[in-house]
Amino acid sequence: MNTQEAHPAAQQQASPKLKHAHHLVAEQMREVEATLRELPELHPPELRAAVLNVVSAGGKRIRPTLTLLIAGMLNCLHDRRVIDLASAVEMLHTATLVHDDLIDGSLMRRGTQTLNAIWTPAATVLTGDYLFAYAANLAARTDIPRVISIFADTLSVIVAGELQQQFTDLALRTTRDDYYRRIYNKTASMFVLATTACGVMCAANENQMAALHDYGRDLGIVFQVMDDVLDFTGAQNNLGKPVGSDLRRGLITLPVICYAETHGADDIACALRGECDPQEYDQIVERIRNSDAIALAIREAEGIANNARAVLNVFPPSPWRDALHELVDYTLKRSH
Amino acid sequence: MNTQEAHPAAQQQASPKLKHAHHLVAEQMREVEATLRELPELHPPELRAAVLNVVSAGGKRIRPTLTLLIAGMLNCLHDRRVIDLASAVEMLHTATLVHDDLIDGSLMRRGTQTLNAIWTPAATVLTGDYLFAYAANLAARTDIPRVISIFADTLSVIVAGELQQQFTDLALRTTRDDYYRRIYNKTASMFVLATTACGVMCAANENQMAALHDYGRDLGIVFQVMDDVLDFTGAQNNLGKPVGSDLRRGLITLPVICYAETHGADDIACALRGECDPQEYDQIVERIRNSDAIALAIREAEGIANNARAVLNVFPPSPWRDALHELVDYTLKRSH
Repeated sequence: MNTQEAHPAAQQQASPKLKHAHHLVAEQMREVEATLRELPELHPPELRAAVLNVVSAGGKRIRPTLTLLIAGMLNCLHDRRVIDLASAVEMLHTATLVHDDLIDGSLMRRGTQTLNAIWTPAATVLTGDYLFAYAANLAARTDIPRVISIFADTLSVIVAGELQQQFTDLALRTTRDDYYRRIYNKTASMFVLATTACGVMCAANENQMAALHDYGRDLGIVFQVMDDVLDFTGAQNNLGKPVGSDLRRGLITLPVICYAETHGADDIACALRGECDPQEYDQIVERIRNSDAIALAIREAEGIANNARAVLNVFPPSPWRDALHELVDYTLKRSH
Repeated sequence: MNTQEAHPAAQQQASPKLKHAHHLVAEQMREVEATLRELPELHPPELRAAVLNVVSAGGKRIRPTLTLLIAGMLNCLHDRRVIDLASAVEMLHTATLVHDDLIDGSLMRRGTQTLNAIWTPAATVLTGDYLFAYAANLAARTDIPRVISIFADTLSVIVAGELQQQFTDLALRTTRDDYYRRIYNKTASMFVLATTACGVMCAANENQMAALHDYGRDLGIVFQVMDDVLDFTGAQNNLGKPVGSDLRRGLITLPVICYAETHGADDIACALRGECDPQEYDQIVERIRNSDAIALAIREAEGIANNARAVLNVFPPSPWRDALHELVDYTLKRSH
């Protein structure tokens, strides 16, 4: 088994903590965790326990944290509906992961086995559907039709994007434009959901709404770019999957695009067509990992992160706004 | 290929038409059809065409017809939101069919190939998800939070029911109670969604709401019982699948339960355990098909149909109420 060490860029510093942010919303995050674990209509107990396990595996809970911080900044953190909204966002995210892992045949996530690794495809499809239903249920609890339609629209964008990918030639997926469109659909759209739905709920004005939209989009894009960088630079232990796994399954990400722009596409051509043999993939992943493409991709993410920070100036200084800055830093600097 | 003739019970009469009902809501059904075909966010054109095909394959459109008739009876058929509601119900139904066919490995539905017969499982899962998202989008367009939560709760009931089935021993699935619970979850819950969501939208009073609930439940149950009867009595040409296909894949339905009650379980024991060989299944299906179990199951459906008709007495006589009676007759007498 390949237990590759972390890339020097990732080793430079310990992964920053979301200390300030977590402290500010600790109480509400406990309520979110409790809400996520309610799972109505689900019997028998073994089934419930297994689905609870998926929901609890947790990860970083970055989307509900984002939602709660926005609510804090907009002065409506103590509205119970904010808890439902933050829970709905995380539940929708979890539902999409269950189907994604099934589709990609991923057997591990966050260091634990995926549902499709231990269950039949049928049960996995249904569990994802069940979590979609629960997400819709939580969104409906906010009692605000506009919030609910933002949810529905976001799910359309995410799924239509993935579906389109299933029907498009790999060869057409190597432009920067296409990459940013894909990661907007796949990742940033859900960050935008979190920020704008919260804005609607907390009656943000038009100017604030535009800033919330842009902050969510840029934060989400930085998050995904760094995820794609980490897929090359991370230690396998942290990633829970082989280094370069995106490229190996035909996913062209920003480090690859930067590499091709700087060094030409010739020595990674089979990867761009998605048809290298395993040894060739090892070599190409190593070549990209050790090239300036990594630093170039990170620099690009830093530029977008600066935009994310800048749009927050619409809001007056507050601990909440500071924590939203911290969230950008965290997203940019995390090592897994 | 088995081209078994229709059961005598099914041949006795031509399948009744929903003439009166269809005439009353013809204009609105055209709007529903147009709404179903909108499919936002879906590119490229080939993908859109393929998904449109699934949505258009259509079937009987019994759920939107039901929704529109209830709206007519409650005097709010000309509210645009009724079109969105009727479309949302049909879209949710279609989405569940896409995942159901994948899970069951069904290759044909309504005489045409299923998505999973022509696409990868990945694309089929995503198409179902996309249709869920569109159903949620349509439900949200009604702008009534309570309607949206009825949608979300119904999807929870349907999916949790199916999921539970995946985790329960076949041997526990042979009681009448269990059967009725299953068909409520799987089928009748969506009829209840149609009637009660429409009641909420049209501001029905408490008494009327109770009647709408019971009518939806009983109509849905009759619909599913007759579907299960037709699985034994129908001609294969009409069914688009082998006669007795439910039993062959381990689904115990009312005709089987009636047979076991009247004749004992001994000569169908392997089917109750889900472990006959194909020839034994042929014999057992033939045995049930030619027994009094069919008439007993139909008689049970007739009793429930009478309840459905009776609860409509809460409403004053009207062409709409007549059409809802016609819907019960149709459900009971249809031959496919």
